[in-house]
Amino acid sequence: MTGTPDLAAVEAMDAADPLRFMRDRFVLPEGVVYLDGNSLGAASPAAYAELEKAAREEWGQDLIRSWNKAGWFDMPVALGDRIGRLIGAAAGQTVVTDTTSINVFKAVHAAMGLRPGRNVIVAEGGSFPTDLYMAEGVASTRPGAVLRLEGVHAPEIEELIDDSVAVVLVNHVNYKSGELRDMAALTKRAHDVGALVVWDLCHTAGALPVELDRSNADFAVGCTYKYINGGPGAPAFIYVAERHLGTATQPLSGWWGHARPFAFEQSYDGDAGIRRFQCGTQGILSMRALKGALDVWDDVDMAALRKKSIALTDLFIQLVEAKCAGYGLVLESPREGTRRGSQVSFAHENAYAIMQALIERGVIGDFRAPATLRFGFTPLYIGFKDVWKAVELLEDILRTGAWKEARFAVKSAVT
Amino acid sequence: MTGTPDLAAVEAMDAADPLRFMRDRFVLPEGVVYLDGNSLGAASPAAYAELEKAAREEWGQDLIRSWNKAGWFDMPVALGDRIGRLIGAAAGQTVVTDTTSINVFKAVHAAMGLRPGRNVIVAEGGSFPTDLYMAEGVASTRPGAVLRLEGVHAPEIEELIDDSVAVVLVNHVNYKSGELRDMAALTKRAHDVGALVVWDLCHTAGALPVELDRSNADFAVGCTYKYINGGPGAPAFIYVAERHLGTATQPLSGWWGHARPFAFEQSYDGDAGIRRFQCGTQGILSMRALKGALDVWDDVDMAALRKKSIALTDLFIQLVEAKCAGYGLVLESPREGTRRGSQVSFAHENAYAIMQALIERGVIGDFRAPATLRFGFTPLYIGFKDVWKAVELLEDILRTGAWKEARFAVKSAVT
Repeated sequence: MTGTPDLAAVEAMDAADPLRFMRDRFVLPEGVVYLDGNSLGAASPAAYAELEKAAREEWGQDLIRSWNKAGWFDMPVALGDRIGRLIGAAAGQTVVTDTTSINVFKAVHAAMGLRPGRNVIVAEGGSFPTDLYMAEGVASTRPGAVLRLEGVHAPEIEELIDDSVAVVLVNHVNYKSGELRDMAALTKRAHDVGALVVWDLCHTAGALPVELDRSNADFAVGCTYKYINGGPGAPAFIYVAERHLGTATQPLSGWWGHARPFAFEQSYDGDAGIRRFQCGTQGILSMRALKGALDVWDDVDMAALRKKSIALTDLFIQLVEAKCAGYGLVLESPREGTRRGSQVSFAHENAYAIMQALIERGVIGDFRAPATLRFGFTPLYIGFKDVWKAVELLEDILRTGAWKEARFAVKSAVT
Repeated sequence: MTGTPDLAAVEAMDAADPLRFMRDRFVLPEGVVYLDGNSLGAASPAAYAELEKAAREEWGQDLIRSWNKAGWFDMPVALGDRIGRLIGAAAGQTVVTDTTSINVFKAVHAAMGLRPGRNVIVAEGGSFPTDLYMAEGVASTRPGAVLRLEGVHAPEIEELIDDSVAVVLVNHVNYKSGELRDMAALTKRAHDVGALVVWDLCHTAGALPVELDRSNADFAVGCTYKYINGGPGAPAFIYVAERHLGTATQPLSGWWGHARPFAFEQSYDGDAGIRRFQCGTQGILSMRALKGALDVWDDVDMAALRKKSIALTDLFIQLVEAKCAGYGLVLESPREGTRRGSQVSFAHENAYAIMQALIERGVIGDFRAPATLRFGFTPLYIGFKDVWKAVELLEDILRTGAWKEARFAVKSAVT
C-alpha cells in the first residue's frame, strides 16, 4: 500500500473481507469500537444459547443426570480438542481446565520433573506477572530451584538457556508490546541444550494460527476469555505434547486426573493421557459459554484470520502515524506484521488520560502502566472502518486536548 | 414420636414446617423427588437471574468495564463473606475460588508450612478420595512427608494424632455414611499436640450450621454446588482463620493473591489477608449463579434448617425400617440425628439395581460402590411428603422385585 488510505479505500477493505460475515455472530454494544478483545472477548448468541441450555434444561431439569446425559464430565477433553485446532495440537493433548495461573504451575512442575538434576527456570522479566509468580510458587516447592529472567539477568532470553535449565516459560505474544516469538526457533534452542519449553498462548490462541505440534512444543497454557471469546474468566487450557504424556506428572493430583476417578480408590494413580492435567470438578456454566464460543470458530479459516489481523494492525499503525503525527505517540509494537500479535501499543506520556478520553467516547482499548495505550484487534468482529473511526477519534482527542478533561479512572482487572 | 407416622401425620409436618416457603424459590422437575441435592443442588430463579444479568448486560454490553463496574474482581471475597455466615466464619476469612481439590492443596500446604519440622499428614481412609489424592500431591512436593490414614493405620483418627503431625485433613460429614464429626473436639485434640486441622465442609456447608470460628478451626474448604445450590461445578471456597492470615502461605501464588495485583510487579508479594488464597482469574459466569443462589440463603435461619434436616432424615429412617422391613436394607448412617449430616445411607446387596429402579420412577438418589443407597435431604426444597413418597416407592420396588428389571446404568460424576 502506498499513501495513506482514505475512507473509501478503508470501506473497500471491509467489502473485500472474507471474514466480514463473522461480525454478525457477536453481540457488541451500539456505538462502541471495541479494541479490548485481547482482554475480554465479546459475547455471542452461540455462547448465550449454550449457557441457557446448560442452566435451564440440564441443571434445572435433568439435574445430576446431566453429568452423563449432557456430557459434562467429558467436556474439558472434548473442548480441549476443539481448541487444539486453533493451536496446532492433534487430539488428546489439550484439556480445558482451571485457570492459566494454575496450569502454569502444573506445566512448569511437570517440566522440572522431566529434567531431574536441573534447577533453573528461565522466564521473561516482561512477562505478564502471574507467570513469574507461579514459577516462584513452583520454585518454592523445589529446593534449590532458581528463576532467571530475561531483561534482568540478560537482555535476551536465548542467552539464559544453557544445560542447567530445566524449563523455559515464555509468552508467545507479549501482553504489552504485542511482540510475537518464533516458537519453533526458541523451542529448538531450548531442546538443543536439553531444556523444555512452556508456551503461554494467552495472547495468541484465537489471535493467529499457532503450530504447537509442528514446533515440537513441550507444554502450553492459555486462556479462553480473550480472542476465543469464551466469557469472563472462562476456563483455561493446558497442552502436553503426546511424547510427554504418561511420564509428565503434576502435584495437583485431584480425582479428575485419576485413571479411574469413579473407582474411588484410596491412592492416586494418574491417567496416562491428558486427563492427568485435570484436578477437580469444573465450573460447567462457564465452560458451556466457552462451548458456544467455540462453535463460532468452526467456520474460521486460520490463515484468513491471520491475514486480516495483520491488515487491521498495519492499517492502524499507518493511520495513527499519518494522522496523529506530532502528538508524541511512539510505536511500541513491532512494525513488521509477521512479528506482531493482533494488537498494537503506542507509548505516550499522557497515555492514561488519553485512554480515558477514548473510552468515554466509545473507543475501548486499555492502558498499561506506566505509559502504554494498548489496542487489540479481534479479526472476527473488528472491521477496517472500526480502525478508521478509532484513529479519527484519537486524532481529535490529541488535537483538541480533550484528554485533559478525562473524568475518571477505569482500571482493567484482566490482561 | 411413637409409632410410625401415617400420611396425615406427615402432611401435618409439612403444614407446620417454617421453611416450607423456601420450596418456591427453587426450580425442580415435575414429578421428581430429588434426593441428590448432596451431589448437585437444585437451580433457582435467583441463580438464573444473576447468570442472565452477568451474561447479557455485563459481559454483552459493558464488556471489560464490568470488572470494576459490576464488581467482578471483588466478588470472590464478597461471596466468601456471605458463605461465612453459613459456616460460622467472621468476615475476611473466606474466599470463593477455584475447586475444592485445589483448595485442599493450598490449605494442607499452608498448614505444613506453619508446622516446620513435622512431616505427617493425617487423613481418613474413608474420605472422599480427592482429599487423599491432593494430600499425596502436597506430600510429593515436601520431601519426607507421609500420610497416615484412619482405617488403615489405626481404626480411629484420634489415635493417629501425635506431635509428629503437622496437619489433620478431615471431613466434617462423611460423603458416604453421613456421619458428622465433632469439629470442636477433634480440633482441640489436634491443637493439644500442636497439629493444625483442615476441615472439608463439602457435605456440611448449607446442610447444617457450622461453627468454624467457635470451634477454633484453622482451615476449611468446601464446595458450593451441593447444599448451597450454586450450580454444576460452582466455585469452591477456602477459609483461613484470622490468626493464620499473613503467616500462612501457599505455592499457587497467582496474581489474584498478590498484595498489589495491578502494580504488575516482577516478584510475588502475597496479600496479608484472605486474598492470598486466590490464584488466577475466576469463572465469572459460574460465580454469578452462585451469587444468586446465596441470595436465597439470606432468609434462612440455620437453626431451623438443622431442625428440619434432622426431622426429615429421622422420618426417612423410621419409615424405611417400618415399611421395608425384611427386604435386607441395613442402615449405614448414624441413627442419632445429631451425629448425622443431612443424608441417609442404607446398604443392600442389590443397591445398584434398586437405585436404578428408583431413578427410573422419579426418586433420584445415588449409588455408592459397593452396596450403598444414598439419599440426600436438602431442607430448603425437600418436604416431609417427599420422604413419604420416596419410601412408598422403595417399598414397592422391593416388594415387587421391580429392581430386577432396572434398565440402564447411570453413574454419578460428583459426590
